[in-house]
Amino acid sequence: MSDEYWIWGSAATAPRILHSMVRVADLERSLAFYCGTLGMQVLSRVDVEAGRFSIVFISFAGDYSAPAIELTWNWDHPANQEGYSHGTGYGHVAIGIPDLHGFCAQLEARGVPIVTGPKTLLPGAPALAFIRDPDGYSIELIQTSRQTTPAS
Amino acid sequence: MSDEYWIWGSAATAPRILHSMVRVADLERSLAFYCGTLGMQVLSRVDVEAGRFSIVFISFAGDYSAPAIELTWNWDHPANQEGYSHGTGYGHVAIGIPDLHGFCAQLEARGVPIVTGPKTLLPGAPALAFIRDPDGYSIELIQTSRQTTPAS
Repeated sequence: MSDEYWIWGSAATAPRILHSMVRVADLERSLAFYCGTLGMQVLSRVDVEAGRFSIVFISFAGDYSAPAIELTWNWDHPANQEGYSHGTGYGHVAIGIPDLHGFCAQLEARGVPIVTGPKTLLPGAPALAFIRDPDGYSIELIQTSRQTTPAS
Repeated sequence: MSDEYWIWGSAATAPRILHSMVRVADLERSLAFYCGTLGMQVLSRVDVEAGRFSIVFISFAGDYSAPAIELTWNWDHPANQEGYSHGTGYGHVAIGIPDLHGFCAQLEARGVPIVTGPKTLLPGAPALAFIRDPDGYSIELIQTSRQTTPAS
């Protein structure tokens, strides 16, 4: 069998969460945001002419051992003009950021609005912030290094 | 500072995806599904009386080093009766399963409908299946061990 499709490895003995998938209206816009602005990498991209869609796996790691996001772009979908709708159920993807305050300052300098925060909800707890991706999906940013946390 | 809130570690030097969050209408029903049926574990649960909500982190691993799902239950939300709505944008969480066909057979025996599959879309590729959680969120199951893949 070919290795090319076994991107998640083939020696697993236990279940594990691999990725979450969201549909995007403009793939290049999303890649500019997730990779150019947030710093993720493209792990793989598949353009399916017959099905008129593309899928791209992106991650902060260079391989599929870490959790990923799957972006699905349907080439001819009306949502590409109208936007995808967001129900009340799905919440967000959370990303751990070593220096949250510095990261948020960088995002603002690049024109990304910080919807909430960065703020610390409980004394001694990591600071949190929320942003939105170009399609309006909520992203939670969580401070993951104490050393760079200023008082807040 | 207290360690109790630094559940994702505090020595990170690079960003990483931590979890995805979905709102659920009946927390015990969701825990029965994700933990009892799918085999995940509760990492932590916080019940916030003042905010009238609970959050529970669940994972296939026993700690926060692996990706998790955050279940949010708003105690008094109308969606607890009416159900949360699902827009057109959010897709699914994908879970790698070593023996997908066996796992799907177990799910069916426990009354979980297999919405799609298990089937192999391309020769040599892992088999896929789709199920839904009690709130209707789509979950993709992906075969992650070649040894147990029957021809399909």
